Amino acid sequence: MGFLTNIWGFLQRAWTIAVHEPKKLMHCLKVGLALSLVSLFYYMRPLYQGVGGNAMWAVMTVVVVSEYTVGATLSKSVNRATGTFLAGALAVGVHWVATQSGEKLEPIILQASVFLLAAAATFSRFIPSIKARFDYGAMIFILTFSLVSVSGYRVQKLFKLAHDRLSTIAIGTSICILISMLVCPVWAGTELHNLIKNNMEKLSDSLDGTMCSRIFRNDVKSNNTKSEASNKILQAYKCTLNSKATEESLANFARWEPAHGGFNFGHPWKEYLKVGASLRSCAYCVEALNGSSICSDAKVPDFLKAHFSKFCRRLSASSSAVMKELAVAIRDSVIDIGEGNASSAVVTLAEMVPLVTVTSLLIEIAARTEKIAEA
Amino acid sequence: MGFLTNIWGFLQRAWTIAVHEPKKLMHCLKVGLALSLVSLFYYMRPLYQGVGGNAMWAVMTVVVVSEYTVGATLSKSVNRATGTFLAGALAVGVHWVATQSGEKLEPIILQASVFLLAAAATFSRFIPSIKARFDYGAMIFILTFSLVSVSGYRVQKLFKLAHDRLSTIAIGTSICILISMLVCPVWAGTELHNLIKNNMEKLSDSLDGTMCSRIFRNDVKSNNTKSEASNKILQAYKCTLNSKATEESLANFARWEPAHGGFNFGHPWKEYLKVGASLRSCAYCVEALNGSSICSDAKVPDFLKAHFSKFCRRLSASSSAVMKELAVAIRDSVIDIGEGNASSAVVTLAEMVPLVTVTSLLIEIAARTEKIAEA
Repeated sequence: MGFLTNIWGFLQRAWTIAVHEPKKLMHCLKVGLALSLVSLFYYMRPLYQGVGGNAMWAVMTVVVVSEYTVGATLSKSVNRATGTFLAGALAVGVHWVATQSGEKLEPIILQASVFLLAAAATFSRFIPSIKARFDYGAMIFILTFSLVSVSGYRVQKLFKLAHDRLSTIAIGTSICILISMLVCPVWAGTELHNLIKNNMEKLSDSLDGTMCSRIFRNDVKSNNTKSEASNKILQAYKCTLNSKATEESLANFARWEPAHGGFNFGHPWKEYLKVGASLRSCAYCVEALNGSSICSDAKVPDFLKAHFSKFCRRLSASSSAVMKELAVAIRDSVIDIGEGNASSAVVTLAEMVPLVTVTSLLIEIAARTEKIAEA
Repeated sequence: MGFLTNIWGFLQRAWTIAVHEPKKLMHCLKVGLALSLVSLFYYMRPLYQGVGGNAMWAVMTVVVVSEYTVGATLSKSVNRATGTFLAGALAVGVHWVATQSGEKLEPIILQASVFLLAAAATFSRFIPSIKARFDYGAMIFILTFSLVSVSGYRVQKLFKLAHDRLSTIAIGTSICILISMLVCPVWAGTELHNLIKNNMEKLSDSLDGTMCSRIFRNDVKSNNTKSEASNKILQAYKCTLNSKATEESLANFARWEPAHGGFNFGHPWKEYLKVGASLRSCAYCVEALNGSSICSDAKVPDFLKAHFSKFCRRLSASSSAVMKELAVAIRDSVIDIGEGNASSAVVTLAEMVPLVTVTSLLIEIAARTEKIAEA
């Protein structure tokens, strides 16, 4: 019974995802389509003769390279192609050296080169700047190099193998890139833009009024029915706290994408990261405030509470309004010039963060002044 | 010239990593060793006859499965083996059905099954609980299923192909697992433990004294030479802010690991996540405080400042001391019973976070009381 309930819950969750994010459903169909297309190469005889028995490399490429966003697909394709090409060229070179140096030395040279290059490429994956952009390429480099140099000992037709692998990878990646760009494309740039915009809106919702109500908790006790919904709004900012990794990978992928929508190639994606960082530091303040409100139901005289509550509400409402305007500015920046607006938004936001902090602290002080007086 | 400087800087950074983290250097050598071992299968004739021309699957497995921590290697190995086995069995079944239903229907059934299963497996990778633990397995499932069902149309020796693939994967994964566990193992559990411990210590360092000095900035102006070092300590807590993703993936991998050091199999790794979350919410407070100190150099009378400064320093020193004790408790929990201590540490910490918050706010209030009086 418990097992069945588990499965049922699992299916329900899957259904929720499918209904709420049709883009993801579409992505699955795209992967299926790409795989069907590439397996046609296997079924059609003339094509099959062309690329030889290595057509399975094309299948493998499609499975590995298909990613959710266009940028990720492009980045993986470029990584895969470059890694394969470099490693293939190097492996052929090493193989040539090895065959020249006699039958006894040959396996030793091959083994040593595999060991050294694999260790070096693995090490390069630990360096942050390489890890961010060429992690996959380094792995493919190790893979291709060891495959080619190991099988070169047997197959004798090294050039043919290298050529086959390159051409099948070309087939696989071009199918994937075409499908991901032409059928309902999901652009990493647009996703990043929306993520930042939504985070900003949620943060401003959390700031707006609701926060004050929570801190001056007594005020809301009268309308307890609302508190469920308002609590949800209040928690909305939490997604901003941990979005750093997502933002960085999206910005990384967005760099690979060609012009789309209102974004040009070379759109200043890094500016978005700065806006994201400002938003996060603002969310930290909200989080600190929210956590501290636990201890704030101390004995504060009512007249003081009422006085400060009015004041704070005005403050947080106005900072929320500023943030909403910024969100609108960001939304519109696509239609406008993009760069100029995004930068100015960053500047404005950087100026705004201290303001919000002050607001938060003022709210706190209102709740605590009495305590100090007692001390 | 600029290019050469870039390369020089890059090499310097690489050297720093190599010197400061010898474990990472060791990992590279381990990968090289595993690859050399597996390529021996290719060079030795009798073994080569055994697993057939598909020995390159073993090379591929080694490259893909070699991960930094033991837990990650184990998790990837299990995923790869399970995914391959399930997909292979299913593909053989579908192939049998297809051959039974006549020559005309055969390619259609194969194509449709590839399309449907690839789409379903891709979709499953979007479901969070699957993504966290079986993401790689789902990819391997798609890969193996399409490879077997596509090449089954040609090769005719389906069972042999499936068997070869399974046995080569078994060879590859067992080499990787043995090497990662026997040669200088890096346990995800220990890494997680150290990460949490270090974060706690850094946070307590940041809290200790330095914070106050920063907020009551005038005090430190006298000893400006120290401020460089103290600033570094003050910034130390920042690494706690964004460690959520790392902690979660380490806890995920740690679950796969057998008993090692003071940790048993089934150690309550989830408790570490809770401690991590508490630490983070504490770090948010520190961050909010730190950000707000920008505006705190207002005109506060010196006698007030001196008075509060003494008070706050005592507060932050004591909360820092509490946290240091907790860090020691966590470090010792390995030697002791583990479970009991870790849980109690969580409880203590959960009680402590509000305390730290109060401290922070008291510090703030000290700096701002004057302003309110003016308002």
